[in-house]
Amino acid sequence: MKTLPLELGDRSYPIYIGAGLLDRSELLTRHVTGSRVAIVSNETVAPLYLARVRAPVASLKPVEIVLPDGEQYKTLEHLNRIFDALLTARCDRRTTIIALGGGVIGDMAGFAAATYQRGVPFIQVPTTLLSQVDSSVGGKTGVNHPLGKNMIGAFYQPRAVIIDTDTLNTLPDRELSSGLAEVIKYGLIRDPEFFDWLETNLDKLLARDAEALAFAIHRSCRNKAEVVAADERESGVRATLNLGHTFGHAIETGVGYGNWLHGEAIAAGMAMAADLSRRLQWLSVAEVTRIENLIHRARLPVRAPASLSAARFLELMAVDKKVLDGRLRLVLLKRLGEAVITDDAPRAELEATLASMREAT
Amino acid sequence: MKTLPLELGDRSYPIYIGAGLLDRSELLTRHVTGSRVAIVSNETVAPLYLARVRAPVASLKPVEIVLPDGEQYKTLEHLNRIFDALLTARCDRRTTIIALGGGVIGDMAGFAAATYQRGVPFIQVPTTLLSQVDSSVGGKTGVNHPLGKNMIGAFYQPRAVIIDTDTLNTLPDRELSSGLAEVIKYGLIRDPEFFDWLETNLDKLLARDAEALAFAIHRSCRNKAEVVAADERESGVRATLNLGHTFGHAIETGVGYGNWLHGEAIAAGMAMAADLSRRLQWLSVAEVTRIENLIHRARLPVRAPASLSAARFLELMAVDKKVLDGRLRLVLLKRLGEAVITDDAPRAELEATLASMREAT
Repeated sequence: MKTLPLELGDRSYPIYIGAGLLDRSELLTRHVTGSRVAIVSNETVAPLYLARVRAPVASLKPVEIVLPDGEQYKTLEHLNRIFDALLTARCDRRTTIIALGGGVIGDMAGFAAATYQRGVPFIQVPTTLLSQVDSSVGGKTGVNHPLGKNMIGAFYQPRAVIIDTDTLNTLPDRELSSGLAEVIKYGLIRDPEFFDWLETNLDKLLARDAEALAFAIHRSCRNKAEVVAADERESGVRATLNLGHTFGHAIETGVGYGNWLHGEAIAAGMAMAADLSRRLQWLSVAEVTRIENLIHRARLPVRAPASLSAARFLELMAVDKKVLDGRLRLVLLKRLGEAVITDDAPRAELEATLASMREAT
Repeated sequence: MKTLPLELGDRSYPIYIGAGLLDRSELLTRHVTGSRVAIVSNETVAPLYLARVRAPVASLKPVEIVLPDGEQYKTLEHLNRIFDALLTARCDRRTTIIALGGGVIGDMAGFAAATYQRGVPFIQVPTTLLSQVDSSVGGKTGVNHPLGKNMIGAFYQPRAVIIDTDTLNTLPDRELSSGLAEVIKYGLIRDPEFFDWLETNLDKLLARDAEALAFAIHRSCRNKAEVVAADERESGVRATLNLGHTFGHAIETGVGYGNWLHGEAIAAGMAMAADLSRRLQWLSVAEVTRIENLIHRARLPVRAPASLSAARFLELMAVDKKVLDGRLRLVLLKRLGEAVITDDAPRAELEATLASMREAT
C-alpha cells in the first residue's frame, strides 16, 4: 500500500492506494469519528463490494443507500433520496458518509455530506478507474442540472480516500477506457514524462496489468493532489485539470447524460483542445497526432458526435462554469505537457475546431 | 448609519444598520464584483422594495427571481427554481446573488449562492425584524425537509448585510413580534443588561419607535456577530444561540411549516427552556415569571400547541441537528443572562416540561 497526502492544512487527508484495501478494516475505521455511518452506493457496485465495506463498521448498524447506476441519476431528486434515508434513520451530524462507487456516487454522496445538517464527515471509496484517478480526490462534489453539468455543488473535502485497485477487476472495458482519459490528461497538462510512459505502457493498462495500473493511479493521484494543494478552490492552476472538459461537458449535456461516458466526452474534448492549440500554433501536427493516437489506442473517441452542430456547441459551452463575465475560458496546450488557460482564443479558430472535429456522418 | 464588523479573517464582512439604506446605492455596488447580479425575493417583498434594490445595479440587467412567500416554500424544489432561473439567464460564477426579504429568502438565496457553480458571492438585504437581528448574520443557509427544519444547508458567509430599518414600517404586527423573540433571546443567553432594557422599552418597540428599533437591532447584531466570530461552525458557544430552538423546531415541524411563525415557535420554546431550567433549580420562579411576562408582552406564545403530545415532541426532537450520538443536547439557562449547553437534563424533568407547558385545550 502507498499513502499519498493531500496537503490542505487542517483539512489534509490521506489517499491510500493498493490491492486488497477493502479488507484492511482499520483504514476505514480510523476515519469514522461518530457513532453512526451511512454507506451510499449504486445497484451495480453494492452487490460486489458493499458487504466488505459494511463489515468493519457493522457494529454501528450502517444505513445503506443504494441508488440506480448512471450519470442520468446525478440529480437533485436522487440527492434527496439520500437525505430521506439519513433523516428516516435519524442520522445526526456526526454521521460519517461513505461513498462506495464511481464518480457519480462520489459526487452525490460528497455533496450530501457537504449539506446534510450543514456538513458531516465523509470517506471516498472509489471503485472505477475514473473516480480513483480524478473525481474522488480534491473535494469537488455536486449534481447535474438539465441545463448544465455539475452546476450545483460544493467544495468539500473527504477525510480519506481508499483506493482498492482490485476493484478494477470487475470494471467493464468501456469504463476502464473512460478512466484512462483522465490518466492521459495528467500527462498532457503537466507531466510529459508520464505521457511517454503511457505511450509505452498503454497496452499493459488495457490488459489490466496490476503493477501498471497501480503505477498509473498513484502517478495520477500525485499530480491531482499537487494541483489541488496549490489551488483548492480553482482560482488559478486547478482550472488546468479541466483540459477537454468545456468541450466534453457540452457533449455530455448535448447528447443527454449517460449516453457518452464522462471519460469518452473528455477524450474527444482533449482532442478538440489539441486541435485548437495546433491552430494557435502551440502544438505541431506531429504532437497532435501523438495525442490522438494515444487516446485512440485507449479505445476512446477523438471526435465529437456528428449530431452536435457548431452552433449548438457554442450554446452549450456558454453555460459552462468556466465562463466568466461572458468570456469563454478554455484550457489549451502551450506544448505537450504544459496547459494554459486562455480567454482570447479567436472565435474563428474555435469555430474551425468545432466544425472539423466531428465524427463523419 | 452604523457599521458593525463580523470578524472572520479573510471572510470578514460589514453589517450596515440604519434608516434609508436602500437608497444608499454605494452600499450595494461596492460589494458587487462581477458583471452579473441576481436578486431573489418573494411575492410580498418584491412589490415593495425590489425596484429600489434593482436601481443601483440596473445597468447589469439583474436576473429577478420572485418566489412565493412562506416557510412552506423553503424546500429543495423551490431552491431549484432559483437554479433554473440562474442557468436560463446563463449566470456565471462571478454572479452576485442578492437576498431581499425575510429569513426564508435569506436562507434559500444564501444556500443557492453556496452551491451554484460551487459558490458565488451573495449579499443579504433583510426586510423583517427576525432576519435583521438573526438569520441574515452569521452564514447559516439552507432549506427544510419534510422530516426536519434546516436539515439541508451550508455555512456560507455573505459579503455584506444591509439592514434598512425603514423596511420594518411595512412589516405586519405578527411578523414584528416574531422578530422580537430572537431579540429577547440575546438578553436571555448573554446580555442581561439588554434584557432589562427590553423590559423597559418593549412598548416602544411594539409601537415601532424608530430609535428604539435601531438600538435593539444594533445590539442584537452585535451579540450575534460576537458569538459567530468566536465559533463560526457551531462547535461550541454558537449553539447557545439555539435557545428555545430544539423545542421550537419540533413545534414548527409538528404543526406544519408556516402555521406558527418561526419566532412564535422559538418564543414558546424559550419559555419551555426556562421552565426546564427552573426544574433543574437554575432559575427561580420569579425569573421564569419575568421571562414569560416579557415574551407575553411581545405578543408571543409561552406555551406549545395543545395538539403536540409529549411523545410526539420527543420524537420530533430526536431528529434535531442538536442531537449528537443519540443524546439530546439542550440549551438551557444557568441564570437569567447566561446560557448553558447540556446533554444530561434528566428525562423525567424534560417530560414534566413537555407535559405542563402546553396550551389548555
